[in-house]
Amino acid sequence: MTQPQITQQDHAAALIRRLETCEPSLKAFTAYDPVRIRADADSAGSGPLSGLSVGVKDIIDLGGYVTGHGSPIYDGNYTRTDAACVTQLRNAGALCAGKTVTTEFAFFRPGPTVNPHATARTPGGSSSGSAAAVAAGVIDIGLASQTAASLTRPASYCGVVGFKPSYGRYAAAGVKSLAPSFDTLGTITRDVATAALADAVLKGPVAAPVAFTPEKPERILLCLTPHWNEAEECTRNAVEKAATLLGEKVPVAELDMRAFKDAATLHVTIMSYEASQALGWEYTHKRDQLSQQITGLLDAGQKISYAAYRAALEQAHALREALSALITPGTVLLAPAAPGEAPLMTEGTGSPIFSRLWTLLRLPTVTLPGLTGVKGLPVGVQLLAGLGEDAELLNYSGWAETLLPRLPKPGLYAACREEIR
Amino acid sequence: MTQPQITQQDHAAALIRRLETCEPSLKAFTAYDPVRIRADADSAGSGPLSGLSVGVKDIIDLGGYVTGHGSPIYDGNYTRTDAACVTQLRNAGALCAGKTVTTEFAFFRPGPTVNPHATARTPGGSSSGSAAAVAAGVIDIGLASQTAASLTRPASYCGVVGFKPSYGRYAAAGVKSLAPSFDTLGTITRDVATAALADAVLKGPVAAPVAFTPEKPERILLCLTPHWNEAEECTRNAVEKAATLLGEKVPVAELDMRAFKDAATLHVTIMSYEASQALGWEYTHKRDQLSQQITGLLDAGQKISYAAYRAALEQAHALREALSALITPGTVLLAPAAPGEAPLMTEGTGSPIFSRLWTLLRLPTVTLPGLTGVKGLPVGVQLLAGLGEDAELLNYSGWAETLLPRLPKPGLYAACREEIR
Repeated sequence: MTQPQITQQDHAAALIRRLETCEPSLKAFTAYDPVRIRADADSAGSGPLSGLSVGVKDIIDLGGYVTGHGSPIYDGNYTRTDAACVTQLRNAGALCAGKTVTTEFAFFRPGPTVNPHATARTPGGSSSGSAAAVAAGVIDIGLASQTAASLTRPASYCGVVGFKPSYGRYAAAGVKSLAPSFDTLGTITRDVATAALADAVLKGPVAAPVAFTPEKPERILLCLTPHWNEAEECTRNAVEKAATLLGEKVPVAELDMRAFKDAATLHVTIMSYEASQALGWEYTHKRDQLSQQITGLLDAGQKISYAAYRAALEQAHALREALSALITPGTVLLAPAAPGEAPLMTEGTGSPIFSRLWTLLRLPTVTLPGLTGVKGLPVGVQLLAGLGEDAELLNYSGWAETLLPRLPKPGLYAACREEIR
Repeated sequence: MTQPQITQQDHAAALIRRLETCEPSLKAFTAYDPVRIRADADSAGSGPLSGLSVGVKDIIDLGGYVTGHGSPIYDGNYTRTDAACVTQLRNAGALCAGKTVTTEFAFFRPGPTVNPHATARTPGGSSSGSAAAVAAGVIDIGLASQTAASLTRPASYCGVVGFKPSYGRYAAAGVKSLAPSFDTLGTITRDVATAALADAVLKGPVAAPVAFTPEKPERILLCLTPHWNEAEECTRNAVEKAATLLGEKVPVAELDMRAFKDAATLHVTIMSYEASQALGWEYTHKRDQLSQQITGLLDAGQKISYAAYRAALEQAHALREALSALITPGTVLLAPAAPGEAPLMTEGTGSPIFSRLWTLLRLPTVTLPGLTGVKGLPVGVQLLAGLGEDAELLNYSGWAETLLPRLPKPGLYAACREEIR
């Protein structure tokens, strides 16, 4: 008896069913169009991502859809072209589901998306829709981005894998800029293997062979970071539990990070200055349609002198060199991913404090799910490696993933999800 | 007797007269709209750039115009927003004239613009329209960009000042990307003082005070580059003449650049790989509307492995460190700007060989006019300084400018140009 062949149209139909089932309560998408999904399935070739579905964060261009940037200023901003990353994923056989909710310009004002583990709680931001839709099983790969904590934090809150690669690894063409010294494109997936599969496609114009082989690092450096006292008990427990579980196989030492105590402040200075330029048109001509959160950021940027900005860039460079001297090959860093469990929707999208440092340093990071807090909600931990050590980090994370507990499926998991792949 | 006040509407009227006079033969603009110019003059505030007019290279967004990228693919690509740099210039009081001609995607396929010094000759590319319109006196500031030689070469051919700052100095939001490791926004002007005026506006969200004080460097390092044997006699003469003129005031030594002989090749590798991603949508879906020049670039990029690309990035980084060790504060480098005088229109926009090296190294560069070749056409020379030494370079260039000969006005100079400022 032969296995019936699963076509791209079968995948499209299943994707549309999952969207129709979950979206009314999940609100992870700003737009999805079943007609377009079926048309794309007709024209899709086959490739390493055939059968996988992608959500495109709404600061990323997807042809045939509005690119809304989470702002009413861009209502009706219909886009003809695909961003570079979308072209790469499509050429590799992936199906695009639609546009996923972002906070306003990938900063703080939240969209309507709920956390699939607890619908009164935030999925985190700014990559809110991509994280929630992956967690709920609607899509396989959520395109996401990080300028402060916009990928790591929602991955932690939604209990999924977040991969923010080394700065510059994925092409940014067609992605709205917030602070170009930091803006980094990445993915949200349910496992590290899928992140590695997408990585082979996203790191170049042609899909590279996938070389994902989970392996043990030589050592783990525990990074409590200068902000450990801002972590809730559940985050401290999660990091310590992960250190214990991984430490049974690999030596763990603590890294003294006092030299990095100003990193978060430097991050704020550089981000404010650059955002004030990148969003200069909106600030000048559409200020009445901007939130107080974003005008606060841009006001602050306007008050920073060029000399202070340059000094911050130079200090950031020095911190990168200092950290790089501390990391030998085979080393993985283990750090908190977010201050705690997901806050209530009414409280915003959570604090970025546990990512500012790492985004400033431009290191690749993988957020791993598995642990939970006092409310039973996901609490991620992040693993990091040296700049450019992305392939190694994915391998180490694939190993670590098998040692952490398996998170129960969220309440809002697509009951109709057929594992047809 | 009081001086009559010159209003923004007076400036707008003069700008429109210059456009109407020159454009029929110069062909430097893809679009300009007198109605919009007058409306902008009404709403323009006053600032450090009041009275100055700007041409916006057609890979840069200017609200109310089509952003055409020099490609039929983007016919009708109407744009609502201004790029960050346009917002900054407008907020400082500048008037935008319209969109200036670019080669296709800032690569090689030329537009219709002629060289104002000799209308059968190319203005150079890719910033063809900005260079020609500044040389012809139509506008004061041409927004331009460089990924290989797209700013320096047209500045040299058109006999104007080209300022490509250090990589990353000006905000790239709203500018089409070609190869993000190199893409750098800059300006074309008729003198260094105007470049410095624009620099104070473009380097941050708020115009900084102008601190332009022409001054002598401590030493000049003559960089014949590894490609000296590809320079025509007129370029060699120009560089030697500049060294003689400046050398009467400041010591000149020759810099041995044999260690940099692979820089141009590394530049081609990185540029091809990144362009294949940045233009992935066009390559995948609109290949029949691309030129052979650009498909050649993208085909080449598709054949480069990720490992080869990474190795090239690392070698480029090592060359940057090596050069930075050779430059002490107070040093200016003097180098050829282009292989010779402007080629005939039928021969293309000229070779980028004398800029690939410097663009790879990300150094700031000022192209200075004044010298001429056997045909009496402009031959520029470039001055460079260490990364981040942009303010110092502008000061040194302001000094050098006074020692070089003054170029005669081109044949196609706006006879109606009122020096009302």
